Amino acid sequence: MSAEFSLINQYFTRPTSNTVLGIGDDAALLQVAAGNQLAISTDMSVVGTHFFPDAAPYDIGWKSLAVNISDMAAMGANPKWATLSIALPDANEAWLAAFSTGFFDCANAFNVDLIGGDTTRGTLAINVTIMGEVPIGKAITRGNAQLGDDIWISGSLGQAALGLGHLQGNMVMEKDVLSTCLLSLHHPQPRISLGLALREIANSCIDISDGLLADLSHILKASSSTTSNKGATLALDKIPCLASVKARIQEPSIQQAILAGGDDYELCFTAAPNQRDTLSKLAEQLDLALTRIGTINESGKLSIILNDEPLNITHLGYEHFA
Amino acid sequence: MSAEFSLINQYFTRPTSNTVLGIGDDAALLQVAAGNQLAISTDMSVVGTHFFPDAAPYDIGWKSLAVNISDMAAMGANPKWATLSIALPDANEAWLAAFSTGFFDCANAFNVDLIGGDTTRGTLAINVTIMGEVPIGKAITRGNAQLGDDIWISGSLGQAALGLGHLQGNMVMEKDVLSTCLLSLHHPQPRISLGLALREIANSCIDISDGLLADLSHILKASSSTTSNKGATLALDKIPCLASVKARIQEPSIQQAILAGGDDYELCFTAAPNQRDTLSKLAEQLDLALTRIGTINESGKLSIILNDEPLNITHLGYEHFA
Repeated sequence: MSAEFSLINQYFTRPTSNTVLGIGDDAALLQVAAGNQLAISTDMSVVGTHFFPDAAPYDIGWKSLAVNISDMAAMGANPKWATLSIALPDANEAWLAAFSTGFFDCANAFNVDLIGGDTTRGTLAINVTIMGEVPIGKAITRGNAQLGDDIWISGSLGQAALGLGHLQGNMVMEKDVLSTCLLSLHHPQPRISLGLALREIANSCIDISDGLLADLSHILKASSSTTSNKGATLALDKIPCLASVKARIQEPSIQQAILAGGDDYELCFTAAPNQRDTLSKLAEQLDLALTRIGTINESGKLSIILNDEPLNITHLGYEHFA
Repeated sequence: MSAEFSLINQYFTRPTSNTVLGIGDDAALLQVAAGNQLAISTDMSVVGTHFFPDAAPYDIGWKSLAVNISDMAAMGANPKWATLSIALPDANEAWLAAFSTGFFDCANAFNVDLIGGDTTRGTLAINVTIMGEVPIGKAITRGNAQLGDDIWISGSLGQAALGLGHLQGNMVMEKDVLSTCLLSLHHPQPRISLGLALREIANSCIDISDGLLADLSHILKASSSTTSNKGATLALDKIPCLASVKARIQEPSIQQAILAGGDDYELCFTAAPNQRDTLSKLAEQLDLALTRIGTINESGKLSIILNDEPLNITHLGYEHFA
C-alpha cells in the first residue's frame, strides 16, 4: 500500500468500545457474549448502481453502514462490529473526510465499532460486513410467518423511491415533499430498537430494501411448506405515506413507489393478532408508527386491495415468488 | 435483483457444516464455541489492481478466499466462515461457474462455510470477509516479538513476485521455473496447520502479503515500545528460494522479488531460541520448510546481510517503518 493510501487508513482508525483487538493486525478479535449467537450480513455498494457518481460522500458513508445495520434490525440482532472495504480511484482527502464522517456518524449512533477493513485503488466500490449479537434461539427469521398473522410495517413507505425518481428525472415532486424524500433516500434510519423489541413479539421479519412486495414475498416463500402455501392480502390504502403522496394514490407511479420502490429500510413483520395491544404500546414507546396493513393467509398469492377493490399489480413489474 | 442475478446466487449456495443459519435470510447466524474468540479479516480484490482482466476465474475464486484464510493462519485462528460480495459487469455463467469452483475448492480444503454474500452489477470487484475461532488469549499478534527471538519463515519466497514480473514482461523466467512461480502467484496455500501449531510456540506472526521487509517491519513497529525499539538482522542467503533463483541472488531484481515481492502468503514469525527443536519437529510433521533467517534486536532498524556482508536495501523501494 502506498503512503497515499496509508494516509487513508487514518480516517478510519477510531477507538473501539466492544472489541478485543481492532484495526492493525492480521485480523480483529471479538468476544461474543455468553448465551449469544453472532449475526452477520454483508452488502456491496457500487458507483453507478447504488449511488450517483456525484453523490455526497457523507451520504454514501452513512448509507453504506445504515443498510447493513438494517439487516441486523430485521434479525432482532444488536449491531456491534463492522468491517469496511473501499476501492477508490484516487486518495481524494476531502471525499474521504466526508465519507468517514458519514460512516462514523452512523456507527456512533448505533454503537458499532469499525474493527477492520481494506483500501485499494479501483472503481469506487464499498463493502461493509456487519456483525451483531442475538440471544441463542431469539433471532427473527423470514421463515416463521403463521397463518392468521397480522402483517405490520414501521414508518411510511415510498419516499426513497420518489426521491430517486425525482433525481432520475422520471417524476416531479413538490419542493417541500422532495426534501423529505431525499432524506429517506440518502439517510435511512435502521430500526434497531424496534428489531430488538420484536424478538419477543414477531413471528417473522424482513427489512424493506427491495420493495414491500418483493420483501414480503421472501417471507411468504420462506414460511411456506408442503402443507401450507403462505399468501397475503394487503390494503394499499392502509400503508402510511406522505399526505401529498396519498392524494395521488391512484397513479401507477405512486403505487409503484409505495409497493415496489426499495431503499426504505423500514421493517415488515408478522405477529399473532393477540400482539396488537403490545404493538400499539411499543409504537408509542418508540415514537414510531407501526401499522397493520394485511393478513397472512393460505392462498399462496400476494393480493392487494385499494379501497376494498382488488388492485391489478402486474404493471408493477412484480414477479410472483411461486 | 434481476432474475439473471438471482441465478448467480445458485452458484454460491452450498450446504454448510459449521453454521446455525446460512445464506437466505437478512443475516447469517453462527455460534462461537465456548472459550473462543472470533477472529475477523476482510480483503477486497479489484480487476486491474489485484488481477489481470483476463485472469482465469478459477484462480480468482481460489485466491480471493485463500488470501483471507492466510490472515487467519497469521493469527493462529481456525477459519470457519466467510462472506463473499461480487460486483460483476454481467452475469457470465461460464465465468461464474469457474470462479465458484475455485472459491469452493479453497473453502472445502479449509472447511470454511460460505454463509452470506451480495451480488451486484459493476466493475469486477470481489470482497471476502473471513471469520475463525481462536481460544481466548491464544491469538498470535504482531506486537509481541521479544528481544533475541529468532525470525522464521515458512516455505520459500519470491516465486509469486517473479511470476508476476514475467506476466508483466519485466523479467524472463525459464519455462520450468515459471510454472512453479505462477502456481505460487495464482494458487497460494494458506498455512493454517502451521498457524494453529504456532499458538503455543511463536511470540509474533504475520503473513507475507506485502513482502518480507514490509511485513516484518509491521512486527518490529508493533512490538516496539518507549523502552525497546525493536530491529532485526536478516540473512538474505538463508531465505529459501528456488535453486535457479538463488543462483541469481546478486541481481537486484531477484533480491527485490525475495525481500519485497508480495503475494507469497508464507508466515513470518518470531520465537524464543529454546523453541528451535520444537520447530524442527513441527517442520517435519507438517512437511513444510521452516527456516531461521535472522534475529530480533534492539537496533530499531532492519538490516540485511548477504554472505556476511551488509546489503544496501534502499533500491528495494523499502521505506523504513520508523
